[in-house]
Amino acid sequence: MEQVREGAVDVDGALARLRHMPFEDLGFAKVDHHRALRHGMPEVIFAMGKTPEQVAAIAERLIENAPNMLITRADPATAAYITERIPGAEYFPASRAIRVWGDRTVFGKGKIAVVCAGTSDIPVAEEAQITAEVMGNQVDAIHDIGVAGIHRLMNNRVRLTEARVVVVCAGMEGALPSVVGGLVSCPVIAVPTSVGYGASFHGLAALLGMLNSCASNVTVVNIDNGFGAGYVASLINRI
Amino acid sequence: MEQVREGAVDVDGALARLRHMPFEDLGFAKVDHHRALRHGMPEVIFAMGKTPEQVAAIAERLIENAPNMLITRADPATAAYITERIPGAEYFPASRAIRVWGDRTVFGKGKIAVVCAGTSDIPVAEEAQITAEVMGNQVDAIHDIGVAGIHRLMNNRVRLTEARVVVVCAGMEGALPSVVGGLVSCPVIAVPTSVGYGASFHGLAALLGMLNSCASNVTVVNIDNGFGAGYVASLINRI
Amino acid sequence: MEQVREGAVDVDGALARLRHMPFEDLGFAKVDHHRALRHGMPEVIFAMGKTPEQVAAIAERLIENAPNMLITRADPATAAYITERIPGAEYFPASRAIRVWGDRTVFGKGKIAVVCAGTSDIPVAEEAQITAEVMGNQVDAIHDIGVAGIHRLMNNRVRLTEARVVVVCAGMEGALPSVVGGLVSCPVIAVPTSVGYGASFHGLAALLGMLNSCASNVTVVNIDNGFGAGYVASLINRI
Amino acid sequence: MEQVREGAVDVDGALARLRHMPFEDLGFAKVDHHRALRHGMPEVIFAMGKTPEQVAAIAERLIENAPNMLITRADPATAAYITERIPGAEYFPASRAIRVWGDRTVFGKGKIAVVCAGTSDIPVAEEAQITAEVMGNQVDAIHDIGVAGIHRLMNNRVRLTEARVVVVCAGMEGALPSVVGGLVSCPVIAVPTSVGYGASFHGLAALLGMLNSCASNVTVVNIDNGFGAGYVASLINRI
Amino acid sequence: MEQVREGAVDVDGALARLRHMPFEDLGFAKVDHHRALRHGMPEVIFAMGKTPEQVAAIAERLIENAPNMLITRADPATAAYITERIPGAEYFPASRAIRVWGDRTVFGKGKIAVVCAGTSDIPVAEEAQITAEVMGNQVDAIHDIGVAGIHRLMNNRVRLTEARVVVVCAGMEGALPSVVGGLVSCPVIAVPTSVGYGASFHGLAALLGMLNSCASNVTVVNIDNGFGAGYVASLINRI
Amino acid sequence: MEQVREGAVDVDGALARLRHMPFEDLGFAKVDHHRALRHGMPEVIFAMGKTPEQVAAIAERLIENAPNMLITRADPATAAYITERIPGAEYFPASRAIRVWGDRTVFGKGKIAVVCAGTSDIPVAEEAQITAEVMGNQVDAIHDIGVAGIHRLMNNRVRLTEARVVVVCAGMEGALPSVVGGLVSCPVIAVPTSVGYGASFHGLAALLGMLNSCASNVTVVNIDNGFGAGYVASLINRI
Amino acid sequence: MEQVREGAVDVDGALARLRHMPFEDLGFAKVDHHRALRHGMPEVIFAMGKTPEQVAAIAERLIENAPNMLITRADPATAAYITERIPGAEYFPASRAIRVWGDRTVFGKGKIAVVCAGTSDIPVAEEAQITAEVMGNQVDAIHDIGVAGIHRLMNNRVRLTEARVVVVCAGMEGALPSVVGGLVSCPVIAVPTSVGYGASFHGLAALLGMLNSCASNVTVVNIDNGFGAGYVASLINRI
Amino acid sequence: MEQVREGAVDVDGALARLRHMPFEDLGFAKVDHHRALRHGMPEVIFAMGKTPEQVAAIAERLIENAPNMLITRADPATAAYITERIPGAEYFPASRAIRVWGDRTVFGKGKIAVVCAGTSDIPVAEEAQITAEVMGNQVDAIHDIGVAGIHRLMNNRVRLTEARVVVVCAGMEGALPSVVGGLVSCPVIAVPTSVGYGASFHGLAALLGMLNSCASNVTVVNIDNGFGAGYVASLINRI
Repeated sequence: MEQVREGAVDVDGALARLRHMPFEDLGFAKVDHHRALRHGMPEVIFAMGKTPEQVAAIAERLIENAPNMLITRADPATAAYITERIPGAEYFPASRAIRVWGDRTVFGKGKIAVVCAGTSDIPVAEEAQITAEVMGNQVDAIHDIGVAGIHRLMNNRVRLTEARVVVVCAGMEGALPSVVGGLVSCPVIAVPTSVGYGASFHGLAALLGMLNSCASNVTVVNIDNGFGAGYVASLINRI
Repeated sequence: MEQVREGAVDVDGALARLRHMPFEDLGFAKVDHHRALRHGMPEVIFAMGKTPEQVAAIAERLIENAPNMLITRADPATAAYITERIPGAEYFPASRAIRVWGDRTVFGKGKIAVVCAGTSDIPVAEEAQITAEVMGNQVDAIHDIGVAGIHRLMNNRVRLTEARVVVVCAGMEGALPSVVGGLVSCPVIAVPTSVGYGASFHGLAALLGMLNSCASNVTVVNIDNGFGAGYVASLINRI
Repeated sequence: MEQVREGAVDVDGALARLRHMPFEDLGFAKVDHHRALRHGMPEVIFAMGKTPEQVAAIAERLIENAPNMLITRADPATAAYITERIPGAEYFPASRAIRVWGDRTVFGKGKIAVVCAGTSDIPVAEEAQITAEVMGNQVDAIHDIGVAGIHRLMNNRVRLTEARVVVVCAGMEGALPSVVGGLVSCPVIAVPTSVGYGASFHGLAALLGMLNSCASNVTVVNIDNGFGAGYVASLINRI
Repeated sequence: MEQVREGAVDVDGALARLRHMPFEDLGFAKVDHHRALRHGMPEVIFAMGKTPEQVAAIAERLIENAPNMLITRADPATAAYITERIPGAEYFPASRAIRVWGDRTVFGKGKIAVVCAGTSDIPVAEEAQITAEVMGNQVDAIHDIGVAGIHRLMNNRVRLTEARVVVVCAGMEGALPSVVGGLVSCPVIAVPTSVGYGASFHGLAALLGMLNSCASNVTVVNIDNGFGAGYVASLINRI
Repeated sequence: MEQVREGAVDVDGALARLRHMPFEDLGFAKVDHHRALRHGMPEVIFAMGKTPEQVAAIAERLIENAPNMLITRADPATAAYITERIPGAEYFPASRAIRVWGDRTVFGKGKIAVVCAGTSDIPVAEEAQITAEVMGNQVDAIHDIGVAGIHRLMNNRVRLTEARVVVVCAGMEGALPSVVGGLVSCPVIAVPTSVGYGASFHGLAALLGMLNSCASNVTVVNIDNGFGAGYVASLINRI
Repeated sequence: MEQVREGAVDVDGALARLRHMPFEDLGFAKVDHHRALRHGMPEVIFAMGKTPEQVAAIAERLIENAPNMLITRADPATAAYITERIPGAEYFPASRAIRVWGDRTVFGKGKIAVVCAGTSDIPVAEEAQITAEVMGNQVDAIHDIGVAGIHRLMNNRVRLTEARVVVVCAGMEGALPSVVGGLVSCPVIAVPTSVGYGASFHGLAALLGMLNSCASNVTVVNIDNGFGAGYVASLINRI
Repeated sequence: MEQVREGAVDVDGALARLRHMPFEDLGFAKVDHHRALRHGMPEVIFAMGKTPEQVAAIAERLIENAPNMLITRADPATAAYITERIPGAEYFPASRAIRVWGDRTVFGKGKIAVVCAGTSDIPVAEEAQITAEVMGNQVDAIHDIGVAGIHRLMNNRVRLTEARVVVVCAGMEGALPSVVGGLVSCPVIAVPTSVGYGASFHGLAALLGMLNSCASNVTVVNIDNGFGAGYVASLINRI
Repeated sequence: MEQVREGAVDVDGALARLRHMPFEDLGFAKVDHHRALRHGMPEVIFAMGKTPEQVAAIAERLIENAPNMLITRADPATAAYITERIPGAEYFPASRAIRVWGDRTVFGKGKIAVVCAGTSDIPVAEEAQITAEVMGNQVDAIHDIGVAGIHRLMNNRVRLTEARVVVVCAGMEGALPSVVGGLVSCPVIAVPTSVGYGASFHGLAALLGMLNSCASNVTVVNIDNGFGAGYVASLINRI
């Protein structure tokens, strides 16, 4: 606007620039190059509900402007399609994530612990770990320390207290974040997983448990949303 | 039936006896004197949804045949009405239970631990304790050892392992039974409480958590059903 | 700690031993050899959400220390993979359980009755039966005695009253535990099954019914959790 | 229309008559005198959500054309207002029903049994009984025969089999209709009641249980809808 | 019992007879020959959750004693297995029912109308129709008369009023039973179907709608339970 | 911005004006004078959850710029407080609305029909009517034409077809919008009401029914949201 | 009726004509030629739950009387079957719609904007667009302008304000209709989509969000019901 | 333990110290002085479900060791009881919080923005603000900037981007966190409030919306849990 007053840019031009700059219109998608500018973060594509062709078209635009990219929820067909087309793309079948990790600068000021309650929760924890890593963090992954074997958890207490943020993934009753939350003094991001059966109602039991956590330092993301947890953990670790 | 064959009792008489013996018909209630015979247990009245007069009428019939009686979910009006009419009846306002405890014989072979996660869960724990006591058990009550302060729980570990059955009452995320279940090798009866707000949905979160417990030795009763937990714990402790 | 004071073990060594003893870290799983020590019980693996390779790796570690092992929720691929690798492993397709039953000592003091309401509930009842057997119990299985044909149930009344604990599996309206609970004086463990359609909501109707049972001696486990019911029944039968 | 062709009635007059005949417009209500004509039934007013004045205005119109009238869900204020204004109106506080029962002709061909599981279910059973009576039926009311005391139910088996239709009211787990349904061969109308607490979710558990009944002769009405059950039972008993 | 007194039958023999008569134990199923005796009805098998072999074994026992048999919810594999083994068995693929209809005596005193709201509801209506027919009733089937085209419904008004009972199957908003209920004076049995998408929640919307019907002559069965509706309609039509 | 270029307004001033113009900041509320500009509509305050003082402060600001104002969900205390302070404010106790109706210009091009199924739905219909009137529409209110008495509805068919938009309020099964939707060719706005009990779940049954309407011209607003329906009907009627 | 009075048509003939005219009975379907008459709209078939043969039979009857036809929710098998038989039928795989668009007259008085939040919502938006087009409207489709990138939305503000009605499709949190509703002054029709995972519960989260929109000009249709939104938008645009 | 080896403390004494140090047992509560040690945080009491006497007893113990204390969810009776007994205690009636704020040191490294969507959400925002302040943070409170008036939000964009963490409280559709999340690059903590009616289901709609936020920097706490949001925001701001 200062430029407008100085006459360096005319009004229409300014409006046009404002209109066209922040994203590119592919018709089926508005490709937003803003994130890198705004967040200093890698580009991210949520692949679920998109065709392999749509994912590829978006990815190709994004990778032009960013050294790092993460594609989440990619089924094997999409993964095959992408890894052929995007150089440096690596597929993680358990979490169904695709990662391009060109710039491995560490931005995080401390360590992020990514914890899961059982072996079946590993895919969600992996999504959180991959996300945190591509966002420039050192991750300490601790698996299978559910609350019914409290000695396994207590045995990892030191590693937990050394983290600057803790991500906790748990299905079934989702009790782990409360116990971890009581052991550490940093923020805990709880990820309910859909692991379980019957009255777990695809992760609802774990979700409700975590929302009602009696530990005050716990916040929650959507069921199986390892990405969101890794993302926010990274933001906190950068502060 | 043997008597019928021997002619000592005629068929109609036998039928009449069978019809009239096991319970007494007050019109609005069939007063069942069977429980004492069948279970060797005190008589129990669930007062919710009954008028004070109905509770009193049932209580008066039952107390004729049993030294011990428990009335649960009695509001203060019912409590006042009953304690005036039934000698020896004592009211517990927190749990809204009325107890007549004439015969204090101990039947339980060991100790029942009744544990609760927070101060607000005490009314439910109290109902379990009162029930277990009137059924002839020694109760070790441990309050306010929720999972977010795991040291308070670990500090009571020995008392827990000394119990023959453990009743665990918890609201909010309902995680305590899983942790206790992992610490002890005896059966754990989990009681979700309606303590909490928002996404606790009046105890639903705790209920679902407990049903999905990753500890194998946990079974569950209805929300706020301290009575049921105390009752089953007593049955197990008598075996 | 006594050893520490006596100097027989130095502090670091003690800590190391404490850290390493109770479980073994496979990375994706902490294999816990504690259960046998703690509960005198067979080792158990919950296969759902684990790859056949993960199940096998855990099973191989566990079977070194235990004569008996139970793997639940194993799909046919996992079953084939395991039965090839673990000698003595037997697969039960209806309940999807794999059992190694080396030590057939009877620990249970009485008989456990495992009852189901309909033929479709048999897989869940089978899981309970297999569990109770491998834990050293004599099981009396009674199938297809749902409440709408009350004479079939009444006809088995004697067998029910002879049991020290009763496991009752039922889907649809889940009414059987209440009726059985009224007939016997021992603890009843109710297992809602996902048998039904429409408003059964995959077992929710049966679950809610059982939680609201008017029989005081009923506790409940998760939908289709035959294992949990068999496990707790075994604990009670050992007391 | 025949009259129209014959010229006896002109078109506008016919339309006007058609418009005005079947109901009377009070502005806030269309008072329908059709029911008596159509069903041969007493007039019925559902008072919930209506002011005492509205109920009275409708009742005064209806009672002109019908000897019998039933007002359901009337709170005490409405009841006082109505019983002052409508001669012969009797209030039943437990079920909150008001009844004018001028014509006591019996239309029913047999007996309707109205059964309830517990004393707390009596208000709903009373609504069903009052409805069936005012519709010209002989009612056999049997209270407090819940399934956990199966001998109380079996003891009333003959009375049940003598009925032409059975109405069964039950809260909590709602199991009674299934057992009764198996004992009788006539239609059973199941009424879930809101009696219970916690996971009964105000009658939802009983409702789901009844909808999933394994007895084929059971149909269900809304929670606490004693009126609906009594009404349909009367229709069946008239056939 | 009279025989016992007269000595014609000894006590043990009487007990044995009582025990063995009403059903036959196949291990996985108690085959109940009671229904024919008790209800004068065809035998019925619910095939869902049973193996083809189990269904066949039960069917073979039942068909020995009954001219008519109905097998519901049979998948094509079961249907093929059964129709090969049971002479006279006919499969209806839309409703997945198998029927043996040897005795075609008409027991119903009037006509049963089976109505459905849309073409997609026909499979459920077909199950109701097949059931009512094999139970000896004349059925008038009226399809595709949903409420949004009220003229299609009004056009069939006479056929509806000629029925002695009406079965109404509807998915989506489930409004048809209320409108039909207002048009006829006989009992209406409402069957919610799982037809719909999104907020129909697999028939829940229709179920709730029907339970809250403002027509007093409506009762409800489980979602997609055409069998139950046809069964009760038949009972009513026999009275 | 043109002004900025021309130097008539400096950048900071422009930003300040932009910041301050569209709304006024009361601290607890941003009073938005935009609506009148943007929509040509009366000002509206949703009183629920606000103190009488807060409502009054907002109302006093708004009424300065607008001749018409509507306050919805005002309890009697708020109503008394407001009607004392705001000249011309009229309270409607059934719908709990307060209206200032200074400018009675008719903007609507046709008539809006506001229909309700039962007398108990009138408060919601009244809110819709008051809203539509204050927005400059002629309203035709038709009460108590629920679907179980289809003749009452058919009798009002002409009035319905004369409307340009129809608002339909119904509780219980919420079937009326589907039937009305089939009778008229204009848009129908369906308002589920919380009228009902038991399985109506405070309007959920009606809401789901309306969302699943088989009539294509039906859209839905929140439970009891008469205001929203009247508002959108007014927008459509102005087009 | 006037004709009846004049004797031009006899009563029986008139009744017959009324009965037979408005729809044609195919047995499994009543083909309604009324819509064109009543609504001036294309014929529409909802294919879900119908066999290809049923869809084809209905389509063939309908296309005789109408130049335009829309078949929604057609799976590929049905699409192949129809496009072979119905000349001019075009299949849209993303939205699974089949369209015959013979008469391309524009009836709409303005433009309908069809907006979606993300690329994954395009299939639902496409269904709305196809519907609006075949009903004679000019559609402006704007994709991928979800609220978390508010600049993408603000950039399209002018296009939005130029529309006469806006259809907004969004999954996940379903926030877009509220923001769009605040930007425009015309009616907004919100379509929740099933896009999302975990706590989106197949579109329930978006549905609830839209029903609770704080923008007054928003009404809602069923989850994924692009057709309904396009239909009502067309009705409004015709007014 | 080092002390144990050195003999300075004997084993029993060490155990005793470990047992007694971290908390004090009041019977109904274990008063934990750990938080201050562990988190450097004020003491916090959740008053809901505790008697005024219990709250006071806990508060009196805690305040001995801490300059700052927060009591949440205190009803007026508790507030009166506490403010009389605890010097310096201040009650905030809107949020029902009691605060003792002795030490006003600022620990936070930046500013915490606490935002709410509507005036009715202020009580929850106030709880967050009070919490953040007592934990040593500077808070920028911005009220009433809901998404339907996007200009009010955009107008506060600069204040939002200046914050180090943002807490967003919103009821109804809960859309605000997604829009704010897109505008800022720091972590956003979303608090669903129970503000709304009908299909808001006491905050469930807002909760689900926030869990499904398409903005990646959003985490969620329980409905109305302003305290939890303020607490975690403070932790993040301290890092």
